[in-house]
Amino acid sequence: MVERRHDREFVRTFFTSPTAVQGEDDSAKMIRSASGLRGMQAPDVWVPDNEDATAPSMRDEGARNVIEVVAESGGEFPGEIHPRVVWHRDSPSARYQGFQHMLEIADPEEGAIEHIDGFVIPEVGDIDDWKKADEFFTIVEHEHGLDEGSLAMSVIVESGQAELAMGQLREEMGKPTNNLERLFLLVDGEVDYTKDMRAITPTGDLPPWPELRHNTSRGASAAGLIAVDGPYDDIRDVEGYRERMTDNQAKGMLGIWSLTPGQVVEANRAPLPPETGSWRLDVGGRQVDLDAEDGVQVYEGDRLSLDETGEDYVLRVGGEELELAEDELREELLGLVEYVPSMDDIVDSMEEFEAAREAGTGAIAMEQSTTLRVDGVEIDVTTDRMWDEATYQAAMTPVSLFQDVYEHRPDQHEELAELYGESVVERATDVGS
Amino acid sequence: MVERRHDREFVRTFFTSPTAVQGEDDSAKMIRSASGLRGMQAPDVWVPDNEDATAPSMRDEGARNVIEVVAESGGEFPGEIHPRVVWHRDSPSARYQGFQHMLEIADPEEGAIEHIDGFVIPEVGDIDDWKKADEFFTIVEHEHGLDEGSLAMSVIVESGQAELAMGQLREEMGKPTNNLERLFLLVDGEVDYTKDMRAITPTGDLPPWPELRHNTSRGASAAGLIAVDGPYDDIRDVEGYRERMTDNQAKGMLGIWSLTPGQVVEANRAPLPPETGSWRLDVGGRQVDLDAEDGVQVYEGDRLSLDETGEDYVLRVGGEELELAEDELREELLGLVEYVPSMDDIVDSMEEFEAAREAGTGAIAMEQSTTLRVDGVEIDVTTDRMWDEATYQAAMTPVSLFQDVYEHRPDQHEELAELYGESVVERATDVGS
Amino acid sequence: MVERRHDREFVRTFFTSPTAVQGEDDSAKMIRSASGLRGMQAPDVWVPDNEDATAPSMRDEGARNVIEVVAESGGEFPGEIHPRVVWHRDSPSARYQGFQHMLEIADPEEGAIEHIDGFVIPEVGDIDDWKKADEFFTIVEHEHGLDEGSLAMSVIVESGQAELAMGQLREEMGKPTNNLERLFLLVDGEVDYTKDMRAITPTGDLPPWPELRHNTSRGASAAGLIAVDGPYDDIRDVEGYRERMTDNQAKGMLGIWSLTPGQVVEANRAPLPPETGSWRLDVGGRQVDLDAEDGVQVYEGDRLSLDETGEDYVLRVGGEELELAEDELREELLGLVEYVPSMDDIVDSMEEFEAAREAGTGAIAMEQSTTLRVDGVEIDVTTDRMWDEATYQAAMTPVSLFQDVYEHRPDQHEELAELYGESVVERATDVGS
Repeated sequence: MVERRHDREFVRTFFTSPTAVQGEDDSAKMIRSASGLRGMQAPDVWVPDNEDATAPSMRDEGARNVIEVVAESGGEFPGEIHPRVVWHRDSPSARYQGFQHMLEIADPEEGAIEHIDGFVIPEVGDIDDWKKADEFFTIVEHEHGLDEGSLAMSVIVESGQAELAMGQLREEMGKPTNNLERLFLLVDGEVDYTKDMRAITPTGDLPPWPELRHNTSRGASAAGLIAVDGPYDDIRDVEGYRERMTDNQAKGMLGIWSLTPGQVVEANRAPLPPETGSWRLDVGGRQVDLDAEDGVQVYEGDRLSLDETGEDYVLRVGGEELELAEDELREELLGLVEYVPSMDDIVDSMEEFEAAREAGTGAIAMEQSTTLRVDGVEIDVTTDRMWDEATYQAAMTPVSLFQDVYEHRPDQHEELAELYGESVVERATDVGS
Repeated sequence: MVERRHDREFVRTFFTSPTAVQGEDDSAKMIRSASGLRGMQAPDVWVPDNEDATAPSMRDEGARNVIEVVAESGGEFPGEIHPRVVWHRDSPSARYQGFQHMLEIADPEEGAIEHIDGFVIPEVGDIDDWKKADEFFTIVEHEHGLDEGSLAMSVIVESGQAELAMGQLREEMGKPTNNLERLFLLVDGEVDYTKDMRAITPTGDLPPWPELRHNTSRGASAAGLIAVDGPYDDIRDVEGYRERMTDNQAKGMLGIWSLTPGQVVEANRAPLPPETGSWRLDVGGRQVDLDAEDGVQVYEGDRLSLDETGEDYVLRVGGEELELAEDELREELLGLVEYVPSMDDIVDSMEEFEAAREAGTGAIAMEQSTTLRVDGVEIDVTTDRMWDEATYQAAMTPVSLFQDVYEHRPDQHEELAELYGESVVERATDVGS
Repeated sequence: MVERRHDREFVRTFFTSPTAVQGEDDSAKMIRSASGLRGMQAPDVWVPDNEDATAPSMRDEGARNVIEVVAESGGEFPGEIHPRVVWHRDSPSARYQGFQHMLEIADPEEGAIEHIDGFVIPEVGDIDDWKKADEFFTIVEHEHGLDEGSLAMSVIVESGQAELAMGQLREEMGKPTNNLERLFLLVDGEVDYTKDMRAITPTGDLPPWPELRHNTSRGASAAGLIAVDGPYDDIRDVEGYRERMTDNQAKGMLGIWSLTPGQVVEANRAPLPPETGSWRLDVGGRQVDLDAEDGVQVYEGDRLSLDETGEDYVLRVGGEELELAEDELREELLGLVEYVPSMDDIVDSMEEFEAAREAGTGAIAMEQSTTLRVDGVEIDVTTDRMWDEATYQAAMTPVSLFQDVYEHRPDQHEELAELYGESVVERATDVGS
């Protein structure tokens, strides 16, 4: 693997809070409240946001609020802290303002910088623009006697230029005249990206931008960084947020922006394997979860129907009608049914594979059996999957993520133990090492 | 934004006409007729096509026809004029022929060049091949006493090499030994691209190439150019042409090739917001427009059914049956219903946001209400969407396009006023400035 | 076209066999058996696999097995032979071991190298890592008196870094200090790629990685190489394997990994046009093959229904009901019906176009007529498609592939003649030349 230079190897959540709100008795109210988050409500990376979430006229006050709140409460905050400052590839004055705010916040005499892990730079352009930001980090470190490269730099990718720059990171990060090794998160910013790309949708919704997310994940993979998706605006739409995260995870983008503590809970939870395994059917490209009743998996929709006709069966799927013997029916259903393993299942399989490997076997079959019931007709099915070294390694990703969380987020131990049970947690922290 | 160096910031339509047709009394018939197009039938960019649309044996005559027709009628043509000459990354003789035709057409004594905005170069290869073409433009300009860089260069991207070259434009365009700042349009050519990529489909239809279109749009964004999609062969399939344009627009590719004046009308119209807003349902990934009857939005398909059962409701969607109280039903329907805003709606929202911003408010909710009727049951729904500076900026894209059209295409003013009404047109030209 | 430097211009199949199996009397059993494959069961490229398919402890024995089996049977093997050795971008010891095995296998005194076309290098990283492998090839060639560049190098792309490297091949391959012109196949390895990208899916299935496959195909196109997809694990799922190949072909990726001789047969067959043409309906994004009964194409599903009502027709599609006159019905059905041409059809069309071109016509319409029967109602439809030079060129791809197969795989002549008939085979080998 590409060398990773930061404490966290995985970041699930990137939570922004306005640094200064107008018209409140305490303009730091939002970040003061966010600084108190703990457990599943607390993000892996908290971002006091002195850019878009804060009105331009409030940003000087916002910088001072960051100093005050982080100096006071940063030491107890369970996640990392990365304030976002202003920046724009097309605006020297925005860049200079961002530099000044970093310089101010990073002053050790203010007592905040010891709790701050880095800064987030929005609206970056091509790679030379990234280097300008990196140079300001270096100057800030030097002026304040911090180790060169000790402040992490995360960027918001919200332009075509920046998307292209992610393809050059691997070769640029080693060059002697920069400290780009400080790079940490690559975060997509789809609203501004949509503007920069001049895209239009009939409803005004954001396009899905699958290629951008792929390229961000690939850029992170090639340079040892972490990919994070942008904000999901429709806060009430929990189902949609989860679907987006599932889609992101299949691209290797395991982190996502969160706008509320409720979204943080969802996003902290999403990349962790479920507590219980479940069966589902994939009918015509739609996945339907099955209801488990006394160990039988029941399908109650109308996309599939099944009749027993003496010895045989009649199965109807997607407008086709098949007459099948029992064996053929089982084969057909095997093509439709899928098992979603629990954390316990994954750890079991990994331990089983480790034991087999120890004994000199390179590949073993992992089986899952159940009884399906469709229209009152029951049939037993058994899925099997070959595990070899590569399967084992790929299955390790959610477990490595769990271990990274477990190591760096003791404030979540209790909730994780409640979720999975103590013994699963213990085995999951041990496996693969 | 990246600096744009040409008059037009948006190009909706790229219309090609054969420069010389065999067996006609007047071999220039097609371009003579095209040169007379006006209003919505006239493209933003007209391309007398001395390459694929014209038989190889007719191309010398084609070049002379271009000179004759453009010298005569080019002054009145309402769009830009960019003839396409021959070129091929693998053929020095094609390249030399293209150079000779440019040299001939650009001769000021012929009287055509004053109406010509640039040339289109097909079949480009890697970036060094683009530079060869650029160098010929420079020589043509120098030989004829034209300003260096005054002739725009547009390319057809129809090879993997050229797709990769689009990732290098930003850094190549500034270099002292070329004039690549003359670049204007990046046009995909999917038929030859399919050949170059050696792709096969069972029916012989073109693959959709979503990644190519993304990369073209991104290349345009990063280098301040304009992305245009290739020809849509099935001229009778207006619905398919529209769907392709909607898909392109969500990628930031707002222009498309047109093969007939009928396609030009469609494509000039497509990226402009509709004259009236409309409601639709998104059921199982399919969008269904609702019929408005006396202000009620009526769904008449069978993917959704709704019954009233005393106090409650039974909603059936995609094979699932939900029993819901009124509030739950409303919430559920809100997840399915979408509003497609009109130009008037967009301008309203922008003005409203501008006023709020003026008054110091950074984000406001925009609401849309209606009554839905499904299976005779009526229910009121209200969608709301938060608008902040970024939403406002992204919503600006279709309005900026409208303003660009309005400024450069006075021949379309009348049709636009008929479409939207004078007052909407006036407000749309003023907003955001 | 980009210059291609190898005998084969197309590779359909990449078949791996373990070089040494533990616990067998003959550890070379698997490669000995594979070396005897002939005809459609024999792959275009056979890969004795001394990496993942073979236990680490068996790899020295594996290298000796390769020498023994290839020296003995390699001369009669009908495909090319490219053993895979160990390599890893992050492991100098893996790289050194791979080098030693290549050096050993390539020793002319062993008698194997004269039958070996190249080696496969897995787990490559960025372009400089590819150069390290290339340098070892050069040293092996020099030490053994082989021509520089005579051993082909194929790579497995299974990291984000390697995906990015494919964008640089075109400019790197010409440089004086490497022999990267030896590159032959770009093969995706999705299991390890999924690990490298840290992707997660609920079921543990591999993500589809459409962008990776596009970028591999594009890299191959830009550098004159051949794109091959990775292994399809679910060996029993023939339908799924075929769907994957259809999807790949639309991306220009015409080759695929095969894990069994059964998969080899499927994959050798897949990119070749079918022996008989067929009609299908595309209803709501799903393609349904029609049953031909006495020349009538019958639809028997329930996604479409058709009634005659006196003079008119009622067509129901996707929940919409249309009342149509006969002409309108025909037009509507034309939008739904597709023809999948046979090899014979394709050769016919190409010959017809060649004759028209000879006679000075640049574009002709190709028609296909049939009778559709839906719910007992019959209606005649005729599809037509314009063919011009570009259509002709794009249609050439499957024919060129056929010709490449026919030239290099005499062992498949008999099966091809059985499939298509002698006269179609003869015309297909002649057309386009």
